[in-house]
Amino acid sequence: MSKKSSYLQTTIEPFVVEPGLTGDEILSRMERISFQGRNLASAYRVWQRMIADDVMIFLGVAGALSAGGLRLILAHLITNRYVDCVVSTGANLYHDLHETRGRRHFIGSHRLDDRDLQSHHIDRVYDTLVDEDEFIENDNWIAAFAATLESRPYTSREFLYHLGGKLWEDTGQDGILTAAFRANVPIFCPAIADSSIGMGLSQARMTDPAKGHVDVIGDIAESANIVIRHRRTASVVLGGGTPKNFINQASVQADFYSPGISGHQYALQIVTDVPHFGGASGASLDEAQSWGKLAADADHVGVQADATLALPLLASALASSAPDAKKTRRAPEFALSERAMSLDGRRFPDSGYDTSHRS
Amino acid sequence: MSKKSSYLQTTIEPFVVEPGLTGDEILSRMERISFQGRNLASAYRVWQRMIADDVMIFLGVAGALSAGGLRLILAHLITNRYVDCVVSTGANLYHDLHETRGRRHFIGSHRLDDRDLQSHHIDRVYDTLVDEDEFIENDNWIAAFAATLESRPYTSREFLYHLGGKLWEDTGQDGILTAAFRANVPIFCPAIADSSIGMGLSQARMTDPAKGHVDVIGDIAESANIVIRHRRTASVVLGGGTPKNFINQASVQADFYSPGISGHQYALQIVTDVPHFGGASGASLDEAQSWGKLAADADHVGVQADATLALPLLASALASSAPDAKKTRRAPEFALSERAMSLDGRRFPDSGYDTSHRS
Amino acid sequence: MSKKSSYLQTTIEPFVVEPGLTGDEILSRMERISFQGRNLASAYRVWQRMIADDVMIFLGVAGALSAGGLRLILAHLITNRYVDCVVSTGANLYHDLHETRGRRHFIGSHRLDDRDLQSHHIDRVYDTLVDEDEFIENDNWIAAFAATLESRPYTSREFLYHLGGKLWEDTGQDGILTAAFRANVPIFCPAIADSSIGMGLSQARMTDPAKGHVDVIGDIAESANIVIRHRRTASVVLGGGTPKNFINQASVQADFYSPGISGHQYALQIVTDVPHFGGASGASLDEAQSWGKLAADADHVGVQADATLALPLLASALASSAPDAKKTRRAPEFALSERAMSLDGRRFPDSGYDTSHRS
Amino acid sequence: MSKKSSYLQTTIEPFVVEPGLTGDEILSRMERISFQGRNLASAYRVWQRMIADDVMIFLGVAGALSAGGLRLILAHLITNRYVDCVVSTGANLYHDLHETRGRRHFIGSHRLDDRDLQSHHIDRVYDTLVDEDEFIENDNWIAAFAATLESRPYTSREFLYHLGGKLWEDTGQDGILTAAFRANVPIFCPAIADSSIGMGLSQARMTDPAKGHVDVIGDIAESANIVIRHRRTASVVLGGGTPKNFINQASVQADFYSPGISGHQYALQIVTDVPHFGGASGASLDEAQSWGKLAADADHVGVQADATLALPLLASALASSAPDAKKTRRAPEFALSERAMSLDGRRFPDSGYDTSHRS
Repeated sequence: MSKKSSYLQTTIEPFVVEPGLTGDEILSRMERISFQGRNLASAYRVWQRMIADDVMIFLGVAGALSAGGLRLILAHLITNRYVDCVVSTGANLYHDLHETRGRRHFIGSHRLDDRDLQSHHIDRVYDTLVDEDEFIENDNWIAAFAATLESRPYTSREFLYHLGGKLWEDTGQDGILTAAFRANVPIFCPAIADSSIGMGLSQARMTDPAKGHVDVIGDIAESANIVIRHRRTASVVLGGGTPKNFINQASVQADFYSPGISGHQYALQIVTDVPHFGGASGASLDEAQSWGKLAADADHVGVQADATLALPLLASALASSAPDAKKTRRAPEFALSERAMSLDGRRFPDSGYDTSHRS
Repeated sequence: MSKKSSYLQTTIEPFVVEPGLTGDEILSRMERISFQGRNLASAYRVWQRMIADDVMIFLGVAGALSAGGLRLILAHLITNRYVDCVVSTGANLYHDLHETRGRRHFIGSHRLDDRDLQSHHIDRVYDTLVDEDEFIENDNWIAAFAATLESRPYTSREFLYHLGGKLWEDTGQDGILTAAFRANVPIFCPAIADSSIGMGLSQARMTDPAKGHVDVIGDIAESANIVIRHRRTASVVLGGGTPKNFINQASVQADFYSPGISGHQYALQIVTDVPHFGGASGASLDEAQSWGKLAADADHVGVQADATLALPLLASALASSAPDAKKTRRAPEFALSERAMSLDGRRFPDSGYDTSHRS
Repeated sequence: MSKKSSYLQTTIEPFVVEPGLTGDEILSRMERISFQGRNLASAYRVWQRMIADDVMIFLGVAGALSAGGLRLILAHLITNRYVDCVVSTGANLYHDLHETRGRRHFIGSHRLDDRDLQSHHIDRVYDTLVDEDEFIENDNWIAAFAATLESRPYTSREFLYHLGGKLWEDTGQDGILTAAFRANVPIFCPAIADSSIGMGLSQARMTDPAKGHVDVIGDIAESANIVIRHRRTASVVLGGGTPKNFINQASVQADFYSPGISGHQYALQIVTDVPHFGGASGASLDEAQSWGKLAADADHVGVQADATLALPLLASALASSAPDAKKTRRAPEFALSERAMSLDGRRFPDSGYDTSHRS
Repeated sequence: MSKKSSYLQTTIEPFVVEPGLTGDEILSRMERISFQGRNLASAYRVWQRMIADDVMIFLGVAGALSAGGLRLILAHLITNRYVDCVVSTGANLYHDLHETRGRRHFIGSHRLDDRDLQSHHIDRVYDTLVDEDEFIENDNWIAAFAATLESRPYTSREFLYHLGGKLWEDTGQDGILTAAFRANVPIFCPAIADSSIGMGLSQARMTDPAKGHVDVIGDIAESANIVIRHRRTASVVLGGGTPKNFINQASVQADFYSPGISGHQYALQIVTDVPHFGGASGASLDEAQSWGKLAADADHVGVQADATLALPLLASALASSAPDAKKTRRAPEFALSERAMSLDGRRFPDSGYDTSHRS
């Protein structure tokens, strides 16, 4: 075969429309088109292969996905174990808590008068609105809850597990925090200080200075220990931000204490940021390979798209083609109620890194 | 009701995943989420209302949609009369002709070595490849066809109708040009000089200087006459570019010769360009209202998305919910084989604008 | 030297701030920073090398640059022969004509009420406003001018030369069209049918159907003949669009009739579109190499930036470092008043391509 | 004056090129053009007004600005007190530390083979490279330094002050951390857990579990106390991310404990993210007004641009027009060496919020 023929092997297959196509069928017909449509179809295949393989799947969540109506998709991914460990911004967890507690977000427009909104205590997230007075009440609720915890630092993972438990106890409602609590899926929030959850925690100190301490440096070790223990990992990133890097950092840090891990085996990201301004959110997954965040032979694809557009289709398709993930996968089992978590029945070290695997 | 309550009326409804959801069901569940997901669901509703109403629907097509695997969706939209009149870039028609003639595009990657591709006569469109030698043969075919036409200027609309006819006669294959020919749907290509079709036409002059003349100024009048005649119009724009403005210009120009038309009644656009750099491709549909391109009360929505991601879902949903558009719509009827086209049985003026409606 | 050392050779040099730095000094200090800042500094160097070399420099202009306050920069580039041949959208020429005729654009905001603007006949271009009634008067002026021309098709290049002449005669004001007229710099407008200039031309036909004919296919041959004659060419593209591809197409078409030309020797582009959606405006210059639009060894750089931000700095720097371009360059000399233009004293063929160079 | 005339008052003034223009002159001539060029010129004026007024100026820094060659501009802004308090991502501080310690970043390309880079321990940041082995040595250095601190949690602000001091003592080199140390400008790093500085801190625990604790919740209270004490504040945000929200959150949290503060008086942001995907990085400053992050009458402007392109010009201009900011401003004075910082001679509470201003 000539070099030219080797370039021109796989034809583009135009998408053929038919009535009644399911999400799974639509994505399947997008596999041999081009650009971001093809990338989304590839992401679907990569995720299916993650589920079929024996890997620990991290999910990173940034951007206003909870406010934007995707929180029950995220809960569904957790409950059905399409993912095993969540890393989130504080805002997504806070807006989730807001709705789990029975409050709502509202449809607005990006063209409203923001000064008038301010005067009515309404906060705007692009085309979505929320009642700020209810937010203040949430903050108080979080502060009160934090004051009931022990007078010691909690990793964000431990704190969020208990927060999910309290929410489940109080409301019995589905959401990200409650689904993770019930499924024993850990949630990390490395930038918790940059969120209303952090604000609530800081307010707990007005009652008792020993309350509301979060050990985010402990989260670094714990997340790396997950990789050290499970070794074969995958990454699903929605929106970039601190979760994207935190998931990658776990992999790099794990390799430092347990050489040979060398990056995630699978990775997909759905981001709106672009690579050419140099920021980490928009960085390509190829770039991540240079850092060893991804394995040199990782199965990976990036999609340039708004998650509100891509995730409903992707999650609906997964529900069709992999409905029994929870049963068929050999998903890792976590125990999260203690200061030191456990994975598959083995407790983590009380502090720092698990060096038992160091060669 | 207080002012605050009036802002906070319609709740965001989180998307609920289920197995087996169709495209129509997925979009329906996206109606009350946020951001571009909601906008795509709104675009679906706007298009359904266009179809249900008695309006002439323009479709604008820019970006590498044909090379990228969407040409049979566009053919489907034409054949089933989800649209009535197409305005396209030359490239989309050329890449359509390429495939209708039996050649193909190929799956590549944006990270290939372009100098090596050049040496093998392979052209790259981001992640998609094509054989340049086949393109040269297309150009010759277009030049030869153009040389068979009369020695007079043709509007792009008239030329493309005959080109579609020739393709249908030669190949019997479905595609944009052949579907439009068979459905008597006009195609305008205002920037035909900026395309390989234009290059083929220019080569016809090497045979005969009187061949290969395109009367693009005539296209302006003809497109405006369509609006003057039909008056109630709608616009579906994929990708911005010259088609977007040409469709809007038709509306503005029509109002000049037949005051009271005042812009499209419906409009949706799916573009990747953003408004804040001032370019026409990214301009919001609100901005179009200031120009009178859209009616002040137009039913409209813009979606910021790659068409390869949004259109397969949107067209699949339309096929489910409006399968009989062709039968149920009162679609305008065109006759396109002559120098002066006809609409609903009435011939257009031989030159310039139809002023019979001038008040 | 180890492979690793060969990667890590040229250090990033942090930008050092000082009072009083000129544009030239600022760009010089940006040469060894990163991302789009470095790219702009590289673009400055590429442009300087174009000017120092014996190449024909094309300038492509898309986006609302004239409305946006850059038209006198473009006139400056033409007058001082930092460029030799312009390809523009119609809108940029129309908005230039508007101001040359003494009308103005106005500062507005993207948050104004577009329906209210419509009711006052004010058109909005993002944050910029214009009086639509004055636009209608421009259209009439163009129609009247077109009616004074001969009853035959004009290439856009020939038409725009005479339009520039008329404007200069009437107003004596500097602008893109008048500067090009005075400097004998050709302007092509391949998508003239998608603009208010085209609308004015179409209105001329209401007076006389033989008026207002533009031979855009002739433009294709003429632009390629420029490349066939001069052979060594460069491309400066602002904003993508039809000008970008038209300039590249000239190069490809020239190679067809005069093999061995093989693409521009230099290229820089300043665009806001991104490559990953597949559209031509955002396509990288590397991709252009696969097509032979750029030479395999072309000196090239792309900048992802809004021209309103990048061009004032870039043009100011060029004015400092290359103030005598007009004198020191061996710029090509055009004669543009006839149907067939001349380059460096030699007339082009009356129709089609110059095949005298064909090997 | 008619309504129409009131819209059309201030004319666009085309930019006029001249040789030798300084950065200040270039920006001044961009004030009445359009789009992002105008916005950058407006940002320049807003920053000048911040400096002239008696406000506390926050600077937020996200994106790879240090790796990308802007760290000495940031140091310059700190040293000359164009800003008073910095909020940064960990990466910007880490890359700053890397260079302050005498290591370098290198010029690369976004098209390099990342798997080959991985095999050579070279990390890529778009078009910029760095030696990963040197990074590992930095991590060890940070771990060793952290082990010398007291066995108690430090706010990121306190920790970074001491880190800057250590760097200054060791190297005597200019940089962000050392400039802030010397100028007594606080730096907060709310997402320190998502960075190599955090990784270094976590490694300190391998020596002693009581080391490497960062009290990020304490940072929330401290940053709000700055606003409570100074009340009139301003925000300069480069790149969005956690710093953008953290600065805004300080304002909202301050208002909670000291009602009447109601948001920053001035704000400018230079970001590449866009608003329409709903993420906080791209959110408009208007949107921030709905939340009370900005005052309803705040003097504000957002620029959509890469900081590597915008900041060199902006900082150069400021250096020309406001060279004596340090002398002429009434800049707040901080004392940062203690667990509880002081502002203008008054110590902050040991824990939680300053409620002495509560009405």
